[in-house]
Amino acid sequence: MTIQAGQQSAASPVASQQMRAALAALRDQPIPATSKGFGRLAAAGRAPGAANPSGANPGVGGPGAGGPGAGSPGAADGTAADSIVTSASLAGRRPYLLGPDFVLPVLVLREAAMRQNIAAMAGYCAAAGVGLAPHGKTTMAPQIFARQLAAGAWGMTAATIAQVQVYRAFGVPRVLIANELADRGAIEWLAAELAADELAADPGFECYAYVDSLAGVRLLDDSLRAAGARRPLPVLVELGQPSGRAGCRSIDEALAVAKATAAAATLRLAGAAGFEGNIHGDSAAATAAAVAAFCRDLRTLGDLLPADPAGTPHLLSAGGSAYFDIVARELTAARPGRSRPEVLLRSGAYVTHDHGLYAAIGPGAGQPGRTGPALVPALELWAPVLSRPEPGLAVASAGRRDTGVDQGLPVPLRIRHTGGRETPAGRLRVTKLDDQHAHLSVPEESPLAPGDLICLGISHPCTTFDKWRVIPVADEEYRVIDAIHTFF
Amino acid sequence: MTIQAGQQSAASPVASQQMRAALAALRDQPIPATSKGFGRLAAAGRAPGAANPSGANPGVGGPGAGGPGAGSPGAADGTAADSIVTSASLAGRRPYLLGPDFVLPVLVLREAAMRQNIAAMAGYCAAAGVGLAPHGKTTMAPQIFARQLAAGAWGMTAATIAQVQVYRAFGVPRVLIANELADRGAIEWLAAELAADELAADPGFECYAYVDSLAGVRLLDDSLRAAGARRPLPVLVELGQPSGRAGCRSIDEALAVAKATAAAATLRLAGAAGFEGNIHGDSAAATAAAVAAFCRDLRTLGDLLPADPAGTPHLLSAGGSAYFDIVARELTAARPGRSRPEVLLRSGAYVTHDHGLYAAIGPGAGQPGRTGPALVPALELWAPVLSRPEPGLAVASAGRRDTGVDQGLPVPLRIRHTGGRETPAGRLRVTKLDDQHAHLSVPEESPLAPGDLICLGISHPCTTFDKWRVIPVADEEYRVIDAIHTFF
Repeated sequence: MTIQAGQQSAASPVASQQMRAALAALRDQPIPATSKGFGRLAAAGRAPGAANPSGANPGVGGPGAGGPGAGSPGAADGTAADSIVTSASLAGRRPYLLGPDFVLPVLVLREAAMRQNIAAMAGYCAAAGVGLAPHGKTTMAPQIFARQLAAGAWGMTAATIAQVQVYRAFGVPRVLIANELADRGAIEWLAAELAADELAADPGFECYAYVDSLAGVRLLDDSLRAAGARRPLPVLVELGQPSGRAGCRSIDEALAVAKATAAAATLRLAGAAGFEGNIHGDSAAATAAAVAAFCRDLRTLGDLLPADPAGTPHLLSAGGSAYFDIVARELTAARPGRSRPEVLLRSGAYVTHDHGLYAAIGPGAGQPGRTGPALVPALELWAPVLSRPEPGLAVASAGRRDTGVDQGLPVPLRIRHTGGRETPAGRLRVTKLDDQHAHLSVPEESPLAPGDLICLGISHPCTTFDKWRVIPVADEEYRVIDAIHTFF
Repeated sequence: MTIQAGQQSAASPVASQQMRAALAALRDQPIPATSKGFGRLAAAGRAPGAANPSGANPGVGGPGAGGPGAGSPGAADGTAADSIVTSASLAGRRPYLLGPDFVLPVLVLREAAMRQNIAAMAGYCAAAGVGLAPHGKTTMAPQIFARQLAAGAWGMTAATIAQVQVYRAFGVPRVLIANELADRGAIEWLAAELAADELAADPGFECYAYVDSLAGVRLLDDSLRAAGARRPLPVLVELGQPSGRAGCRSIDEALAVAKATAAAATLRLAGAAGFEGNIHGDSAAATAAAVAAFCRDLRTLGDLLPADPAGTPHLLSAGGSAYFDIVARELTAARPGRSRPEVLLRSGAYVTHDHGLYAAIGPGAGQPGRTGPALVPALELWAPVLSRPEPGLAVASAGRRDTGVDQGLPVPLRIRHTGGRETPAGRLRVTKLDDQHAHLSVPEESPLAPGDLICLGISHPCTTFDKWRVIPVADEEYRVIDAIHTFF
């Protein structure tokens, strides 16, 4: 098996019949009027005064989304099928994001930027000779997964079994669970899913997980035995750092876990993995040096693992969204007498990049000696100014419910004044977010007034995507041409 | 109009035909297998290997929830209708939360605690002679709204038009938008919704909003005129604090806004409001004193407002979840020559309370001189230990994707060891949350091991509810007897 980006797409069932069918169905599903931002557009097909079509259609339309206001096809309330809003229908309608069709605040995904990021990362990995298993936790959006897989990704990374369940519902063929498993019920589910796959008309589900302790190997082996697992689960031994997250704290400890793994009948030792994203030094240079040192240890662990009895090459995986360039460099560096390992990056945030955390610490401008793919921020949050209660203060309608704040506050990019004129955000700053409000520091001479719109860049896409169930996708003229469904 | 809790239920259409029908439909909607926690239980009705029933049923089942894995009734894949999991069906099945049916981590709502909180708050408001418009942003769960309304709530509070759209989809009859409105498209939607209600078979939608500036009054009046609004929108003048959020910065300013409101043909001056939850003093006593002073100013504003031409009493509203006791006391205090105002609290978090923020600063134990309803924490987050990589460190499978962290980290309550024995959490502490992981400080002698479960209390229900689309509701034996759908 080779997992270089340019080659893996041929080897992976990246667009299985099952996945194509599930995505086609998703694209044709009505966007519920209860989806934040879509409440006006999606409700337009409702008969006047019929505020609650679901009352007339119990059981039709899914909960949490296809429920009240969804405007289900075939509803008996006079809804015309051509007024139903779906991802697919938006491509034809092309409603304007900043016009009356959308209710603000609204998060928007810029199609051109996302397309560039997916292509740039695929090209970067191909050139570096590494594979990519994008971390799907960032977006939890199967429509985006499909584009990442079509661009050559090896498979998708997940953090939890609940995420794997979403991936499987959409037919993602190959999953790396970058985590230990310890929930016996969840392990039983996985064993059953793998067993069912073997009996399916369109088999091909592969799943990998981590182990980092003898106790964990026993728990996993026992649980898989109890579940009657039919084929060994491939697992990677995780290497960690002192005071870090999970993972063995030394190469020797990891080798002992690897040995126990190789001896467990329900497991197959498939390689080694680690996560460098939690490493912090006193400076950017110190962090980069510590990340490199960790990667060299991981490489050494990989070199020392017992070989697979069947000759299957081991995987070596690391690489979040901040330091994947260092990971790729260190894990693929030539070592005398050693073959080049099969390296798998797991970056997730690259797909939208951001205006905060990853813009600051990812490879590229401002990071001397670090080169990476040309990523551009793809997410914007648009919010109206509600109040200008003091000369130096504005309050806008966007809060913790709309964007992540754990890695920094959103960044004002532009102001769209009443009438449509846009100006740069200048010295406008977000100083605080409440649940539903942004507090902004405003130059006193600014004409910013209620009704003006603020375009905000975000920091940390992972905790921004999870605030939105349906995200409009816009072209460069802010015409909405698609919508992405998330499954958090 | 009187809005005392004991009387308002008779006056309000709290269980309109529309709301009953929408909730009945919601309770019968299949819980999708893509709902975090429900991936095993909800998928049990699927035929083996049929990982994606939606592929065979395009257009059936709602997006984002009723999609793949939902097991829609009538699916052609061998699904038995009695294996579909719904809120209603859980009452009969009563699956065990901590058994293999549920995938961890999982958030659980304890029925008895929620019931107590709803009753205690209703009783408290009735005794205090104030009305309650619970802030629905906390849960965005119409099933909970219905219980709050049935307990006598005046209506529901919302922060945004998107929230009002969810409320209306479920037929909530009376809404207080505790916010200014500045999105012209959203205002147009509201005007159309109110107009449609007048023509409906079951009319009765009432909606209130805030104004805090002359510019805002003009914007709202212009937008309502442009939308052809048919009846005046009742608005409350918002009073704020220096360096606070929105709201006029003085009583004089608020009176000028009130005068402009009264003169606007599309608006009706309906009272005054404020938010004290952002007030912070150097000590608990200083904060309480500042909150009380603000409430007295708000009361004075209410006393000075021009009377309604038709004689409708003004509303006076304040009260988040931290200081509502002080609000109730100050706004209802006797004033010579003044009638007792119609006071409306807007607390939202009371419905589940918490083990963090509100346990610490709400009325009750530890707050000398402040008495309130007897609230108990109703939310718990259960997560498995994945790794014990160092004697003093454990890593569990729960993160920022599962609980709010903006008002403090979750609090370990109990450990459930493999085999089912429970022990108190003792000196276990959460030190950090990543997106999908909890870092825990562990006494070195603790036997905590992978597979053990940790029960966490949460801080700030508002930013915890929004991490979950379907939340199991359990009895005191952790049998799951219901499920709550959220609409964030």
